[in-house]
Amino acid sequence: MTLLRPAAGALPQPYLLFLGDVAQPGYAKTAFGLRDWAPDQCIGEYRLPDAKVTTGLAYLTPAQAAAAGARSMVIGVANSGGVIPASWVASLMEALQAGLDLVAGMHSRLGDVPGLAEAATQLGRRLIDVRVPPANIPVGTGRKRTGQRLLTVGTDCALGKKYTALALARAFKARGIAADFRATGQTGIMIAGSGIPMDAVVADFEAGAAEMLSPDAAPDHWDVIEGQGSLFHPAYAAVSMGLLHGSQPDVFVVCHEPGRSEMLGAPGYGLPSIAELIEATLLLGRRTNPRIRCGGVAYNSSRLDADEAGRLIAADTERLGLPVADPIRGGPAFERLVESCLA
Amino acid sequence: MTLLRPAAGALPQPYLLFLGDVAQPGYAKTAFGLRDWAPDQCIGEYRLPDAKVTTGLAYLTPAQAAAAGARSMVIGVANSGGVIPASWVASLMEALQAGLDLVAGMHSRLGDVPGLAEAATQLGRRLIDVRVPPANIPVGTGRKRTGQRLLTVGTDCALGKKYTALALARAFKARGIAADFRATGQTGIMIAGSGIPMDAVVADFEAGAAEMLSPDAAPDHWDVIEGQGSLFHPAYAAVSMGLLHGSQPDVFVVCHEPGRSEMLGAPGYGLPSIAELIEATLLLGRRTNPRIRCGGVAYNSSRLDADEAGRLIAADTERLGLPVADPIRGGPAFERLVESCLA
Repeated sequence: MTLLRPAAGALPQPYLLFLGDVAQPGYAKTAFGLRDWAPDQCIGEYRLPDAKVTTGLAYLTPAQAAAAGARSMVIGVANSGGVIPASWVASLMEALQAGLDLVAGMHSRLGDVPGLAEAATQLGRRLIDVRVPPANIPVGTGRKRTGQRLLTVGTDCALGKKYTALALARAFKARGIAADFRATGQTGIMIAGSGIPMDAVVADFEAGAAEMLSPDAAPDHWDVIEGQGSLFHPAYAAVSMGLLHGSQPDVFVVCHEPGRSEMLGAPGYGLPSIAELIEATLLLGRRTNPRIRCGGVAYNSSRLDADEAGRLIAADTERLGLPVADPIRGGPAFERLVESCLA
Repeated sequence: MTLLRPAAGALPQPYLLFLGDVAQPGYAKTAFGLRDWAPDQCIGEYRLPDAKVTTGLAYLTPAQAAAAGARSMVIGVANSGGVIPASWVASLMEALQAGLDLVAGMHSRLGDVPGLAEAATQLGRRLIDVRVPPANIPVGTGRKRTGQRLLTVGTDCALGKKYTALALARAFKARGIAADFRATGQTGIMIAGSGIPMDAVVADFEAGAAEMLSPDAAPDHWDVIEGQGSLFHPAYAAVSMGLLHGSQPDVFVVCHEPGRSEMLGAPGYGLPSIAELIEATLLLGRRTNPRIRCGGVAYNSSRLDADEAGRLIAADTERLGLPVADPIRGGPAFERLVESCLA
């Protein structure tokens, strides 16, 4: 068994995506992210009979996936707390026995699942936890770094901060601008091949990790940094706060899912308004970058049809006085958001 | 050897305070803090012949201290770098042999001192590092808990948040109010005998740790929670943010050192104004407790003489429209601060 550090080398691709018994799409963002942003590396999906969510990829058993060329099974779902439940263990064992390595990015380690480490050793397979932060992260200094930085921030978790950052980095590059997507979560790290799992960093070093993630760069180079959590989430704001300070963004983009009424995993907590999130981000972000500004708003309008989404985006562009777009739908609205970020 | 988790059970009190070969009082802050705030738990002090500092407590060997009822020897000094020097090891061994557990809060772990872990195991003694957070900290939920809570917040690090919380808890108790000091750093944990080292918690669990630290309590019971870092510190705001959300304080007290011009460890960063810190704390704190309010301001005026301090406190009480006091100086100003917190 080897615990591979995500930045140290390539993960064993292509993947079989494991969905467990996931019941809500919000908890399957790793699987969806890999399907959408690393489609060439996804052979199919595997899930338990109780699962209520699918990526739409072919259903394959681990043996079928291995025969089709898969080299690892990725745990493509999370649950609150990041624990690997006992109900998944038989499937993980099945993957090892089929000749696949296991890749996970949850809080609990693959090696802590009873029996799994022994089985992996015996079978010559690897258990790879991509949430292991790099060693020797320094304490933050607040020193201003060279280069341009954009950070995506959210009214909640799991509503498009990674997608927005990936889409913006892709759009910047399409315009010939030097840009890097900087991954801060397990899925982003799996897609990008490097990054720092910001929510697994000890709190005292959170801003220091963000400083390490986007080092000094050429003056016209953009780091497009994947946001985490929300300053308004009662569980995860510490992560968002350290990432904001350490990223010292020049521009931030607010990510929001219209129609979402309650924070994920926080019963009774409504979402902040976009204006409230902009106010808080400016207030706190000015501490490490006095020039911070809001570049616009990215909507996750996946629950709306195209006409509804178009009308809402047009109306909210007017209402907020800022570019609003759905990065996944693209189009002229998204082009205006890109222009605003680069202005 | 057992690594006792501080929140999981009380530390083995009373203590023998170990001063090593400390030459400057500034490095013996832990011992002085224990002497001043947990006098009933301090049996005496033990030191090497070269030591130049004393707490004024009785000198006892570990064997004498054990006979007098001590249950552990606490390393009450730090040195630059937080390393346990070789010259202390014989004394640590002597304590284990005398039947005392060892308690430390330095950067280097007791278990990393060559031979110490083996000796502890053989003797059935415990090596307790209070910087180790408890296992299985849950993710925060934001659920409103019963009881009253006060949190000290700072314009910077290391300017009196612990002392202010200790003084307020003591004043509350003196008025017959049920109150607990809730410790969030190593010295506080040794004083209280339990607590959670908030800066050593993984960021995703920071708010959850704060929720765990001050559980449901009787409606008229106060938890007085030791603050950490500062929302305006470019390195440590993540800790402050999670602690604020998870503590869901009803009242906060701003701690400030008049005359300090630059944030500790962050060259070029000036301190926020008291008004700015109040604004940010209210904005963010309302998320988990809409009733949050500022109880007043605690000054660390140790660099001023009594007359200067008195004039400044009177002037700033007027200027800010809030009670201002130095908890260490006490007096009527401090009484007004206590009244304001309880109002």
